Amino acid sequence: MLRDKLVLMTQNQHKLTELRPLFERFDVSFETTSVEKLEIRANDVETVAHAAALTAYDVLKRPVVLDDTGLFVDALNGFPGTYSAYILKTIGTTGILRLMNNIDKRTAKFVTAVGYADGDAVRTFVGVMPGNIVQAPAGEEGFGYDPVFVPQGETRTYAQLSLSEKVNISHRTKAFRKFLEWYTKSL
Amino acid sequence: MLRDKLVLMTQNQHKLTELRPLFERFDVSFETTSVEKLEIRANDVETVAHAAALTAYDVLKRPVVLDDTGLFVDALNGFPGTYSAYILKTIGTTGILRLMNNIDKRTAKFVTAVGYADGDAVRTFVGVMPGNIVQAPAGEEGFGYDPVFVPQGETRTYAQLSLSEKVNISHRTKAFRKFLEWYTKSL
Repeated sequence: MLRDKLVLMTQNQHKLTELRPLFERFDVSFETTSVEKLEIRANDVETVAHAAALTAYDVLKRPVVLDDTGLFVDALNGFPGTYSAYILKTIGTTGILRLMNNIDKRTAKFVTAVGYADGDAVRTFVGVMPGNIVQAPAGEEGFGYDPVFVPQGETRTYAQLSLSEKVNISHRTKAFRKFLEWYTKSL
Repeated sequence: MLRDKLVLMTQNQHKLTELRPLFERFDVSFETTSVEKLEIRANDVETVAHAAALTAYDVLKRPVVLDDTGLFVDALNGFPGTYSAYILKTIGTTGILRLMNNIDKRTAKFVTAVGYADGDAVRTFVGVMPGNIVQAPAGEEGFGYDPVFVPQGETRTYAQLSLSEKVNISHRTKAFRKFLEWYTKSL
């Protein structure tokens, strides 16, 4: 089956930097777009990614893939969740740590839902990384909440890992790897 | 001009309790609906209310009025803003006070945007109440962030005011009064 070239929809350069090596590994090329994804309100990233992919296909009329990602902190009832980007911009990682002050239960998870739409179907692929919220931010790599999150099996925050270390293990990688395995098999 | 009876769209019983006396004062009757309003993501309540009213009319095919309200805290870059309901559910007023711990600048504002749509036009009406975030919650009346917000000209929180005191001055009243003045004149 001949398919149009895939469009990867993101305005986040950090995401692109993480995704390029992964897509190369699967030998899947993509284009980017200046069209911004629609973000609906929902409490789970899968619903957000599904709606975004569907809408993006309607606009672009090209196979499109994107993700929605959130950090879900157990002691904060899942906050900041699907509103992670807005909350990062307003109260930042400082705000998260302030909210966690004197809270012993530090467990959290990063969840990425990849949404794909090509006019025939919409598919979502989820990747989860459990971990813990640190007491103080650490590291300069990555982006977003990376300096305050230690992924399971690590003692360092995401922001203390090198790009390739993070790409090897991350929630985003898990989700996009599922997508890429399906995508390359279904060609 | 003969108009269909107005539908007031809210699932919030507290809002209804506050709005009934106001609508009665203007001699405007309304029905309610079990249809839930669409909430798009935007950083201002006017955009959210506009989209919600437009969509609600498309579903109900009846004149519809609704509001979107947010608390915007200056020291938190407008947080919780249009995500006030979600943030109340997750981190609560306790979270707001924790974020404001040791922060001297306590200014904030409540903003309500009323959205109205009747198939001919969509209109929005904005009401603002400036005020301050308290150091500790006080009062049992009202709902939402009322226990942590002291409106301008008051020494008590919204939650320490009686229903009629709050209805006399509130951000929501300001917005709905503008709407009701326009609505009754345009009949």
